[in-house]
Amino acid sequence: MKPAMSKVKRIEGVLAPVITPFGRDYAPDAQRFVRHCRWLLKSGCAGLAVFGTNSEANSMSVAEKRALLEALVRGGVPASALMPGTGHCALSDSIEMTRAAVELGCAGVLMLPPFYYKGVSDDGLYRNFAEVIERVGDERLQLYLYHIPPVSQVSISLGLIERLISKYPGIVVGLKDSSGDWGNTKATLDAFARQGFDVFAGSEVFLLDNMRHGGKGCITATGNINPGPIANVYRNWRSADADRLQAGITATRKIVQQQPMIAALKAAVAHFGNDAQWKTCRPPLVELTAQQEQTLLSELKAAGFDMPGLGAV
Amino acid sequence: MKPAMSKVKRIEGVLAPVITPFGRDYAPDAQRFVRHCRWLLKSGCAGLAVFGTNSEANSMSVAEKRALLEALVRGGVPASALMPGTGHCALSDSIEMTRAAVELGCAGVLMLPPFYYKGVSDDGLYRNFAEVIERVGDERLQLYLYHIPPVSQVSISLGLIERLISKYPGIVVGLKDSSGDWGNTKATLDAFARQGFDVFAGSEVFLLDNMRHGGKGCITATGNINPGPIANVYRNWRSADADRLQAGITATRKIVQQQPMIAALKAAVAHFGNDAQWKTCRPPLVELTAQQEQTLLSELKAAGFDMPGLGAV
Repeated sequence: MKPAMSKVKRIEGVLAPVITPFGRDYAPDAQRFVRHCRWLLKSGCAGLAVFGTNSEANSMSVAEKRALLEALVRGGVPASALMPGTGHCALSDSIEMTRAAVELGCAGVLMLPPFYYKGVSDDGLYRNFAEVIERVGDERLQLYLYHIPPVSQVSISLGLIERLISKYPGIVVGLKDSSGDWGNTKATLDAFARQGFDVFAGSEVFLLDNMRHGGKGCITATGNINPGPIANVYRNWRSADADRLQAGITATRKIVQQQPMIAALKAAVAHFGNDAQWKTCRPPLVELTAQQEQTLLSELKAAGFDMPGLGAV
Repeated sequence: MKPAMSKVKRIEGVLAPVITPFGRDYAPDAQRFVRHCRWLLKSGCAGLAVFGTNSEANSMSVAEKRALLEALVRGGVPASALMPGTGHCALSDSIEMTRAAVELGCAGVLMLPPFYYKGVSDDGLYRNFAEVIERVGDERLQLYLYHIPPVSQVSISLGLIERLISKYPGIVVGLKDSSGDWGNTKATLDAFARQGFDVFAGSEVFLLDNMRHGGKGCITATGNINPGPIANVYRNWRSADADRLQAGITATRKIVQQQPMIAALKAAVAHFGNDAQWKTCRPPLVELTAQQEQTLLSELKAAGFDMPGLGAV
């Protein structure tokens, strides 16, 4: 390990797994990306989990992601607000991306387990995370485990978390739970929250429950389009009004998740920001159909949804 | 597309998805890799499907794989015997690796679908393969689709094959079926074999069936350790003795697949080649336990298994 240096303050609150804009040639579009990140931070996000599942991160090369990350920092987005995804199926890619994030001063990294092989052992997963940590070898690293079995098909078990935090205290510092299973989030909170392990719900649907049980916020797809109201629940989770506020953001989520999520987020940004190029998804994902888009937008409008200030950043 | 150039003759027969040796630091070991590839070609393999599932290919970066591929060609392994895996979850990685393989003169590439997102549409998968083909833009490309739903969790449907071969005849030329479902292999053969679409069984267990229904061979894990007897079935599939020969290679396969396959192949090469470093797997995979290794080796020896000439290449 390099000599201990001051760690960046850990992010708490609402983070967006930022959607990634692509050009017609499917190249990542750094300008639109920086603009959207700025809007998110102005609109209530405490941090940006760039390169998550909703970012189509695994559809991009490490080189493409490093270029986007550097563009963000150069574009004035503070590294202290960044928690990039750095977990790949290739160990060497995870090391390279994690090192790049730490060297840029990012507040943390959100790390998928290697996800090609299925049915792998906790021993193998432990070795993967340990090898990344040792090879990056930098005390500034703050690593959040990314549990998303519906997509990765590889789970982060409580036993694995325990091994990692006892070996790497202050480095393995939290987890995003995108299992969609509140029971798993609660078990993780019960086991580790009091030790200073920061648990983020993977959907704002669980934000209030997560806060009430010692969690630190949420990292949620719809944070890309509805950051203000979601951040409002975070700020007011102790208020008498909290359940009503939670019901509001849950209702918006339910409209969006009727459609393929990533394409729906992009369609919303394209529409409310008046910028059709945002709709493009990189293969293997595809844009919404015209019918899906119409349903999404009409339901959002009927619910009074808006994205104030988008396009003006 | 670049102007048509002479295509490399398509490989038929037995191919090994070559296991990848790693050092103690988990770095790929080009020397051991070249040696093993030479032994495979001397021992009955018609070709080498380097960077397959059994190669831990998705645990390596594109740069690591390109370096290994170049080392093979520099080490005298003919590119005309190579069918590297070039499919990644990132479109840009698939393009880079496919282009590198074509430029080195490889006989073909074996391409996984993008495998991070689950439940993606055939439209999205079609776009992925089409985009790789168009961006590589080289008539020398011979692309084999890699259907391995138990691991990738993303299928190559008959409808997708049909779209691809009608748009890219002479480029999309075959498929490896690792579904483990002979019904799917047979349906693929029935639909496309007569059009010159080359189907390889993903296990030697189906080699004889595949040949009898118009297939072209197999690409099989155990080809790494048992290439001679498997190639013997391929050469003699029309002989009266074929079923007996098939039963012999199936019996060996059954011994090996009782253990975690990749670690078992590496343990066998380590033992019969007297080179313990071969056992190392890259995380998230792990080596066999001592008990697993002992069971594997004693059962192989009891069955009269050997790897003639290994260590003498």
